[in-house]
Amino acid sequence: MTQFKKDEILYERAKKVLPGGASRNQVLRQPHPVYAASASGSYLTDVNGKQYIDFSANIGSLIHGHAHPKIVEAVYEQMKKGTAYMVATEVEVEYAEYMIERIPSFGKLRFLNSGTEAVMHLIKVSRAFTGKSKIAKCEGAYHGTYDVIEVSEKPNPSNWGDKKRPNSVPHTPGVPKGVLDSVIVLPFNDLENTMNILEAHKNDLACVLIDPMPHRINMEPASKEYVNTIYEWTRKNGSLLCFDEVITFRVNYSGLQEYYNVKPDLTSLGKIIGGGFPIGAFGGRDDIMEVLDPIGKYYKYPLSGTFSANPISLIAGLTAMKLFDQDAVNNLNALTDKARSFIQEAINIAQVPVSMSGIGSIIRLHFSDKVPADYRENYFNETNQKEAIKKFIDYLYDNGIICVNSLSFFFNTTMTDKEIEILADKVLSAFREVKPYFK
Amino acid sequence: MTQFKKDEILYERAKKVLPGGASRNQVLRQPHPVYAASASGSYLTDVNGKQYIDFSANIGSLIHGHAHPKIVEAVYEQMKKGTAYMVATEVEVEYAEYMIERIPSFGKLRFLNSGTEAVMHLIKVSRAFTGKSKIAKCEGAYHGTYDVIEVSEKPNPSNWGDKKRPNSVPHTPGVPKGVLDSVIVLPFNDLENTMNILEAHKNDLACVLIDPMPHRINMEPASKEYVNTIYEWTRKNGSLLCFDEVITFRVNYSGLQEYYNVKPDLTSLGKIIGGGFPIGAFGGRDDIMEVLDPIGKYYKYPLSGTFSANPISLIAGLTAMKLFDQDAVNNLNALTDKARSFIQEAINIAQVPVSMSGIGSIIRLHFSDKVPADYRENYFNETNQKEAIKKFIDYLYDNGIICVNSLSFFFNTTMTDKEIEILADKVLSAFREVKPYFK
Repeated sequence: MTQFKKDEILYERAKKVLPGGASRNQVLRQPHPVYAASASGSYLTDVNGKQYIDFSANIGSLIHGHAHPKIVEAVYEQMKKGTAYMVATEVEVEYAEYMIERIPSFGKLRFLNSGTEAVMHLIKVSRAFTGKSKIAKCEGAYHGTYDVIEVSEKPNPSNWGDKKRPNSVPHTPGVPKGVLDSVIVLPFNDLENTMNILEAHKNDLACVLIDPMPHRINMEPASKEYVNTIYEWTRKNGSLLCFDEVITFRVNYSGLQEYYNVKPDLTSLGKIIGGGFPIGAFGGRDDIMEVLDPIGKYYKYPLSGTFSANPISLIAGLTAMKLFDQDAVNNLNALTDKARSFIQEAINIAQVPVSMSGIGSIIRLHFSDKVPADYRENYFNETNQKEAIKKFIDYLYDNGIICVNSLSFFFNTTMTDKEIEILADKVLSAFREVKPYFK
Repeated sequence: MTQFKKDEILYERAKKVLPGGASRNQVLRQPHPVYAASASGSYLTDVNGKQYIDFSANIGSLIHGHAHPKIVEAVYEQMKKGTAYMVATEVEVEYAEYMIERIPSFGKLRFLNSGTEAVMHLIKVSRAFTGKSKIAKCEGAYHGTYDVIEVSEKPNPSNWGDKKRPNSVPHTPGVPKGVLDSVIVLPFNDLENTMNILEAHKNDLACVLIDPMPHRINMEPASKEYVNTIYEWTRKNGSLLCFDEVITFRVNYSGLQEYYNVKPDLTSLGKIIGGGFPIGAFGGRDDIMEVLDPIGKYYKYPLSGTFSANPISLIAGLTAMKLFDQDAVNNLNALTDKARSFIQEAINIAQVPVSMSGIGSIIRLHFSDKVPADYRENYFNETNQKEAIKKFIDYLYDNGIICVNSLSFFFNTTMTDKEIEILADKVLSAFREVKPYFK
């Protein structure tokens, strides 16, 4: 008689009640997802008792790994006093003060429930402040699941058009034409063509939204010249420069924006700032944020939300951020740099055509000699190396390493040399295993 | 020397870091918000030590009041094992099975982080399934903060146009014209004019979205004839009938839809199904939900989300829903009916022109002899009675009763005759107090 494992049984049940048997696309694996039983720090145990080192950090959101005891206890204390009220709380004031102290571009901020909500409201506030309807974003950049910002998130050669002037491509069927028309698509880090496109829409843009190190394009930071030139252009044309730092906030004490010479007008945050609980936020210039003030002179944008700024996500997030101080950032980045050098060594030993991008506590691998310069190079490379990438990830999962499907690795403060050494070892074996599948 | 109270000091700090000093518009009160220190069951204590009975239930989301011990302990146990993973969990399967068993219209469902996200993805799935771009909604209905569904959320006489064919009115500046044009606005519960409008757009509608008892219109259930006729129309015209039950799910064991003779194709949920933690969900017909299945034949809609289906919100929600079984629903509704009769008595004694709407565990007061029939009547009534409404709510807060600003009261399972009697008593005094301000 066949002995079904617990995860096989769960997946059979799941397929009857969840589309595709999954609550989120990123958990899907063949022949079935991994089902978590418990996790602590960097380690996750599945329902069959198998242990993994978790380099996904729930897609970069767990800066202190799983179930950090200080966060667990802080949340437990709050929980006994309530999880959500229709009145205000002290922690919303305290956390806002903390973030405004930490991020020089923040005059005021607003808390929400997810990165998707943060980006959506950042865009809507940009529109309300400028009175303009259009936005510009980079081809291939992921910014959550608001339909406006999904435009050209994953175009392909059949629809993406001229590289110098990319088409606005719908991400799903039925997107209103007016939504598509409201989004101008830029080639990431290509200054000349970006400026030509911006000039062609100079009177219409509420904002230019940039992820300064876009995960799904290539995880390479935008050049200072690219960011500075766009910033100057927005000053002259009544538009805002907005950053999406939902992923990149972890790389420096005040986000990747610390690296540039300009302050974004508005910035969206999410992931690590919730300490493992659902959160989003955006903040920026005082005069822009005033459109949200219901009792102010410049009120234009009514915004409520049942769970926004709930004290659970805020106490978890504030606890996590206080633990992630400048020293913690430096130590984590140094540890990740060590991992970087170990992986480079593995690449050299295995003699595989692999390159690395990412900075701070993020590493992304590319199965190509050099890091793809843009979304289209990355697209062709990923399509070409599909089999090798799949086998590589499967090998890592089989050998107790969880990474993100983009070949990204997110490090957390509970990691030590031990986990880095295991990672390097497994990555080397994986390179050797999949070498025959490289194209 | 002036002695500032703790809430005054907090609000002064808040104004420096949050627009208007508030994280959510609904917490704003003059001269400053109430700041919660702790809450348990129906009782909330503010930072000055003042106690309130909480009939807001965080805008209807706390079906068992604050900090229910079974939910607190279930979440604490999960928290120690992790709050969010990039892999699947058993509880997502168990909770999905539970909801599909509980709601006859659900074949499959998907979990999200808020009601706003639930409605947004319900609309986007409707578009993807039908290939059509437009949607229809009722004038004055609130469905969260996605810009499409905000159209005509709060129009006024200067812009709302002909009642028989209401304008599509932007909620904030800068909304793209294409977004406005994608939304058809219906007069709630007005069958003749609704059908005329639908007929004029018969080839274009992905869905008709209805809150079957719209909070901000009048909190009156849509008539069976209204719902059934729209349902039949959508069958003939390749469109979907979708319900927004984020608020109304609490009124029956399987939501307000239990009352109608038809099953909505898709339904959005939120609030109580998170047990006090951030959540949203939508579900419905199997063949429609298949557009979300990444490994299925009908895949059209890629949807991930960092915090979606996190095990904290799901274990809290599942615990809350199991406690809110058919008996609990019946008992709570009976208690609320008792409150309804007490309030009616208070209206009679005080001889004030007040009417009541809402069913199940929801009561909304209207400062008019009869319940406004639609958004426009409600608008004129609220504008006319603005001063009396404000003084009434202030009196209740001053006397230890929290309600929602729409004059709505949400009951929870920890309430007893004691809280109902106090409410009736305070409401009667409040009526007497504000009687001179009625117009």
